[in-house]
Amino acid sequence: MKFLLLVLFIALIPAFVPPFTSAQSANDKPPNVVIIFTDDLGYGDLGSYGHPTIRTPHLDQMAAEGLRFTDFYAAAPVCTPSRAALLTGRYAIRSGMTQMPGTRRVLFPDSEGGLPPEEITLASALEAPGYTSAHIGKWHLGIHEGSRPQDHGFDYVYKVPYSNDMDRRPGLPASARYRPDPPADGWNVPLLRNGEIIERPVDQTTLTKRYTEEAVDFIVRNKEKPFFLYLAHTMPHTPLFASESFLGTSLRGIYGDVVEELDWSTGEVLQALQREGLAENTLVIFTSDNGPWLTEREQGGSAGLLRGGKGSTWEGGMRVPAIAWMPGRIQPGVTSEPASTLDMFPTALALAGEPLPGDITFDGQDISPLLFKSEALPERPFFYYRGHEVFACRLGDWKAHFITPGSYDGRPRETHEPPILYNLLRDPSERFNVADEHPEILEAIQAALEEHEAKMVPGAPQL
Amino acid sequence: MKFLLLVLFIALIPAFVPPFTSAQSANDKPPNVVIIFTDDLGYGDLGSYGHPTIRTPHLDQMAAEGLRFTDFYAAAPVCTPSRAALLTGRYAIRSGMTQMPGTRRVLFPDSEGGLPPEEITLASALEAPGYTSAHIGKWHLGIHEGSRPQDHGFDYVYKVPYSNDMDRRPGLPASARYRPDPPADGWNVPLLRNGEIIERPVDQTTLTKRYTEEAVDFIVRNKEKPFFLYLAHTMPHTPLFASESFLGTSLRGIYGDVVEELDWSTGEVLQALQREGLAENTLVIFTSDNGPWLTEREQGGSAGLLRGGKGSTWEGGMRVPAIAWMPGRIQPGVTSEPASTLDMFPTALALAGEPLPGDITFDGQDISPLLFKSEALPERPFFYYRGHEVFACRLGDWKAHFITPGSYDGRPRETHEPPILYNLLRDPSERFNVADEHPEILEAIQAALEEHEAKMVPGAPQL
Repeated sequence: MKFLLLVLFIALIPAFVPPFTSAQSANDKPPNVVIIFTDDLGYGDLGSYGHPTIRTPHLDQMAAEGLRFTDFYAAAPVCTPSRAALLTGRYAIRSGMTQMPGTRRVLFPDSEGGLPPEEITLASALEAPGYTSAHIGKWHLGIHEGSRPQDHGFDYVYKVPYSNDMDRRPGLPASARYRPDPPADGWNVPLLRNGEIIERPVDQTTLTKRYTEEAVDFIVRNKEKPFFLYLAHTMPHTPLFASESFLGTSLRGIYGDVVEELDWSTGEVLQALQREGLAENTLVIFTSDNGPWLTEREQGGSAGLLRGGKGSTWEGGMRVPAIAWMPGRIQPGVTSEPASTLDMFPTALALAGEPLPGDITFDGQDISPLLFKSEALPERPFFYYRGHEVFACRLGDWKAHFITPGSYDGRPRETHEPPILYNLLRDPSERFNVADEHPEILEAIQAALEEHEAKMVPGAPQL
Repeated sequence: MKFLLLVLFIALIPAFVPPFTSAQSANDKPPNVVIIFTDDLGYGDLGSYGHPTIRTPHLDQMAAEGLRFTDFYAAAPVCTPSRAALLTGRYAIRSGMTQMPGTRRVLFPDSEGGLPPEEITLASALEAPGYTSAHIGKWHLGIHEGSRPQDHGFDYVYKVPYSNDMDRRPGLPASARYRPDPPADGWNVPLLRNGEIIERPVDQTTLTKRYTEEAVDFIVRNKEKPFFLYLAHTMPHTPLFASESFLGTSLRGIYGDVVEELDWSTGEVLQALQREGLAENTLVIFTSDNGPWLTEREQGGSAGLLRGGKGSTWEGGMRVPAIAWMPGRIQPGVTSEPASTLDMFPTALALAGEPLPGDITFDGQDISPLLFKSEALPERPFFYYRGHEVFACRLGDWKAHFITPGSYDGRPRETHEPPILYNLLRDPSERFNVADEHPEILEAIQAALEEHEAKMVPGAPQL
């Protein structure tokens, strides 16, 4: 209850924020949508999220002007399912884009599957209201026909098809990935423009810079149309590479150099929007695909005060930095309302004034009331999937773990009967199991889980 | 080297900051000094340090207008020695105000010792240049003649003499201390004004409020004189109490209520300074006496991404939030220069244009060049004392642990030969021992330790 009453804190007396209705905007075209998606950036890796030695002035400025989320989730703790969930607005199990019995955890270059053609991505859904869409950056949702960005509504594509540590040079040990100075030619990863390979192996040192230039060019080229830009950075996934102007400049080592370049990149995108007069008609969301890769030694990020990291369903695995920005529309502040990447699809469609495609189960919801009116969202469960299994569920302030993960942090997989329970607002580090004191909460969460699982129709396995 | 070059990050293009020399100020009186010292507040407990559910708008604003330290240390991991070090500018071993063989860890109501009369506190040292000083809040440096604030240069005193969990009611279990709703009459702690008990047991629910009113009154009363205000809050040390207007209002439970009241309190002090036209001639430092008390369950704070908490020489035990504020004098920004409470004494004296008392060994240094000119400080060792022993030493970016602590976190005390070594800028969570790779750093730290210990003259044990 308190959660619903006290959800939103407005840091400053807000400037006058005009009422805002979907599809009605300053210049009479529906708002643009820009999603900036980093790879393996941890909850604690930005200045505004408390990192001591990574400096992120552009993102801090974005946070000061926008809405900073303290409780925002990626919909999976690893790459492929997280991206599938973001672009479809559905848990990845529905599209088969997550680990199923007998499959791998993510797509690999030799995988035969991919995002099924019948899935509707945000880019496809935005075609009807006339959006132009670009995918710039990492894809990791399949390389075969039917699964590629151009098959899923993206008009312009500048991509690396999968993770930057794949297609490793024969003889190079896997651990080369997390050296502070990985070999530039160690991974035979291609760069493609609109389906054509333009560089292989891609020069990873300039990837962030080139993605940024592509993003800015796309914005400038399409300023007269409504557009959707999905800028999915390859960094800071290991192996880490920064361009010459960032290499060796941060206090945090190569990981800091890379994150500071991502910060610069975000600044460039926001400035381009401002320069073109588009800022007040563009919703920009900055977030990450999952938590920090803690096994990468100093080359892995930090989950701050959260427990666990990438691959786990502890908060550190799935709670990520998130900032929403739309000057004059979004009131500056900080919110602890739970939200997730699943909400991006319905929110973007609402902005576009477009109904959700029928006959499809969506797992997120339109969070416009929170973004534009500082209103609390209705309470709803969030499910922490690891592969095809629900390991945990958050409902309001509470999180129950049914299973805790068995890898990455070195502990064995453990099933909890009864589940363990944490109050995430009071105990964000998940230290104090309070299941005994709150049987009624556990019951409500169990009921939510049963309802969810009863209706779940998994897709055909793709990985 | 990089550390010296890249020490300071200025978040915004700084406004014009006039040059500033000691003892020369806008209104021709030396600058006032205000030290706000919280009890057990952890590194991760403020909004600007990344806490998800504690809202601290006044401190965040103070940080936005001032200099926020990412690498600031209390000079001991527990209360009494930390306070002795702050007020004398010397490691507590010099005054005997720390655990020695056979003594306790802090002062208790039945202790016979206290801060020796011959020690010079910052308040005493500021008498010569004509300062009026007030101690408001927790003392914990002795209750007997010669050790009390009025014996150490404080002209006005409004104090609780020791920790708020002392003098426990017979029969009340020690664990009552960290209940979310501790009994108001559980601890027979007195409140004194200028040596006279005015309330016993003190009503702890209004302590923060009353300290704040006293602080504001002192500022208003003394606005014509140079003053030193030492506002040492009792909170958020357990048992936790908030006033009616804060109780139950935070997302973080009682701990959040209490910290949010401290945030309000800081806002009141800064606003009083502004209202009286004193802000530009007052250096305000906000910080904490040690890390969070992790054993207090949900009633203990958070060290954020740092390892360990109160009582330990891991970073979480001694690295604390710290914000320096002096509008127009201090350029807004964030710094990772290491500094500590030991620096407050020499810095305040430099501001007052007063030389340091001769024939006394001080362990800190004047950090005015950092505060007022954004200059790097010369590299110097910082020693992590636990009791009379140096457990660890930081030199530049590096920290060597000779001993790691044996309580609070449940692990056994461990001596490390050779020491373990962390790069604190790259690995703030102290996860990756890199001693093998940097023998030359270990050597330099060992040399610094030997020099320090060779010259150390411990004081007579007081605890």
